[in-house]
Amino acid sequence: MSVTAAKGFAAAGIAAGIKENGNPDLALVVNRGPRRAAAGVFTSNRVKAAPVLWSEQVLKTGELAAVVLNSGGANACTGPQGFQDTHATAEKAAEVLGVGAGEVAVASTGLIGVLLPMDKLLPGVEKAAAELSEHGGEKAAIAIKTTDTVHKTAVVTHAEGWTVGGMAKGAGMLAPGLATMLVVLTTDADLDAPELDKALRAATRVTFDRVDSDGCMSTNDTVLLLASGASGTTPAYDDFADAVREVCDSLGRQLIGDAEGASKDIRVEVVGAASESDAVEVGRSIARNNLLKCAIHGEDPNWGRVLSAIGTTGAAFEPDRLGVAINGVWVCRNGSIGEDRALVDMRYREVTITADLAAGTESAVIWTNDLTADYVHENSAYSS
Amino acid sequence: MSVTAAKGFAAAGIAAGIKENGNPDLALVVNRGPRRAAAGVFTSNRVKAAPVLWSEQVLKTGELAAVVLNSGGANACTGPQGFQDTHATAEKAAEVLGVGAGEVAVASTGLIGVLLPMDKLLPGVEKAAAELSEHGGEKAAIAIKTTDTVHKTAVVTHAEGWTVGGMAKGAGMLAPGLATMLVVLTTDADLDAPELDKALRAATRVTFDRVDSDGCMSTNDTVLLLASGASGTTPAYDDFADAVREVCDSLGRQLIGDAEGASKDIRVEVVGAASESDAVEVGRSIARNNLLKCAIHGEDPNWGRVLSAIGTTGAAFEPDRLGVAINGVWVCRNGSIGEDRALVDMRYREVTITADLAAGTESAVIWTNDLTADYVHENSAYSS
Repeated sequence: MSVTAAKGFAAAGIAAGIKENGNPDLALVVNRGPRRAAAGVFTSNRVKAAPVLWSEQVLKTGELAAVVLNSGGANACTGPQGFQDTHATAEKAAEVLGVGAGEVAVASTGLIGVLLPMDKLLPGVEKAAAELSEHGGEKAAIAIKTTDTVHKTAVVTHAEGWTVGGMAKGAGMLAPGLATMLVVLTTDADLDAPELDKALRAATRVTFDRVDSDGCMSTNDTVLLLASGASGTTPAYDDFADAVREVCDSLGRQLIGDAEGASKDIRVEVVGAASESDAVEVGRSIARNNLLKCAIHGEDPNWGRVLSAIGTTGAAFEPDRLGVAINGVWVCRNGSIGEDRALVDMRYREVTITADLAAGTESAVIWTNDLTADYVHENSAYSS
Repeated sequence: MSVTAAKGFAAAGIAAGIKENGNPDLALVVNRGPRRAAAGVFTSNRVKAAPVLWSEQVLKTGELAAVVLNSGGANACTGPQGFQDTHATAEKAAEVLGVGAGEVAVASTGLIGVLLPMDKLLPGVEKAAAELSEHGGEKAAIAIKTTDTVHKTAVVTHAEGWTVGGMAKGAGMLAPGLATMLVVLTTDADLDAPELDKALRAATRVTFDRVDSDGCMSTNDTVLLLASGASGTTPAYDDFADAVREVCDSLGRQLIGDAEGASKDIRVEVVGAASESDAVEVGRSIARNNLLKCAIHGEDPNWGRVLSAIGTTGAAFEPDRLGVAINGVWVCRNGSIGEDRALVDMRYREVTITADLAAGTESAVIWTNDLTADYVHENSAYSS
């Protein structure tokens, strides 16, 4: 399934030897057409990895024939040599696939500031091309894992006969991101690049952009959408946009569910906001509050830390009208003590924090995780 | 020493029974004059605790006769009852000291969203008043501790015969702050409230405001400066401002050195910035990056996470001109790989990260800590 659920695509995932432990580390996704329309969304970090700079450039044509993805190295902050390596990767894929290098996107994930072992990566591209299969989606999804404990895929098939499928790695978000988030979506719907772009941006804005595991923004985050047109069907835009959003939503939830060291998935729901941007700002502030994230880890309904986080924002609200519910218990009303915090049951993995700004009718949901000792352990030893 | 190093002040620190473990939890600082000029700086969190609202109000006169401080409860998000409790605390202090309630500031620290046990606090104020001493500064400093492992004091005496002394609690900063930062500074210099205010704001801007342990901003942060005039000397403003900054700098460093769970003190030094505000923005972004803070904990000179943090800011820079040194080793030059990261020695508690934006001549220093499993443990169980 995954990126090969939609007709017209082939994929492969292999071990090229980039990772020293011998795990799969190189994926190839190929669009066999008849159409090659594509769109992409990239990190908003101003320090962009070489593959991001490259892929942004090649996507200006609105067409992609293939995507090469590697784990085991981010190829970020690697200077002119890093960019040459990305270019060489696209050239190699183009050569073995018989397409132009300008039709090949590249995505990388792993440690920043280390050059990729091109003597392993380039032969890996040849090997992957030799193993391309219409059933290769799972293997591709596995090959892009870094600290992911499971690979992530999602598929939506519409009654009209077209499909949107995808794979993702890295518990994070588009901007910011924990480690690097790489996502490839494919569809056999027959659509133009501008429509793909519109649907992709609309979907990422309310899915990956609202998954905020640890507030850190990667240099490499990449989301690509490739359309083969192989279903022969051109869906209504809204139906297609819904399907893309559904796949992104599923992948986003899977990313949070597998975030580094997390023991709780936290749904931060901001209601009663004067504007959607206020709701998002407050949601992010809550989602990034380390003290609160520790409290949730300890199953402590410490609503004071929620109010403290709200208070740092510029959103419209009056402190003495704020309300906070944790798993449905309104522990704070009118900015003060509400229901007994002992009523809050936090035993389950999913925790919902509802913040009512009492300032309007807009709302937003941000997903995050708790902050755990395992997160610290995992990230204290990443490069050593 | 502490707040009683300057002439004209008395202080006490006692156990009122607010803390269930019987530790000291109430401090009283009294200005015996002849002058009572005072200034204060408070949290910029929009959700402000009752004592902050009270103290901001009473300081409008530019005079304070006394400060009551309690640990064991923040009296934040406690509604009208909480404000009445703060008022009653000031009234009680005024009554036993023979001053007006409008001359008494109140500061509280502890858990948010819990009413203070006034049946213990008010008798505690009487008890503290009975124990006031010109040597009571240490006891006062001990009584305001929460998760602090040591109490914090600092004193500067000028050759002209005047002194600035102070006490602080809570590893944090003015805005934001980890838990709550409470600071009381005293001086026997003879100065007016506007001069005190100017010197205090100038000092906190470059000291407590640049101590950023965990990016969280308290509802209760308070810094007060009281002047008795008892030295009979009116210092030159610059000399006085220097002394206040020196005391604040010392207390700020002590806060970082005792931050919850920290094993490293990290000096983030941003140089080559186009403006001071750019330098501060970049410094804060680096100081708040959880992934980097974990890496430093693991003694891993992971400079990619520094670049990633810089890239999220709006500061003026070109990615391919950025430089990063860790403990003096330029591991990143021109946005790419610099000296061998193996040359970086991170065995000691203090770690210096230098970020060169290569965009100008301005600079700033932000102090922070590493992120550790101990921080998570301590903050997972705070209220339970």
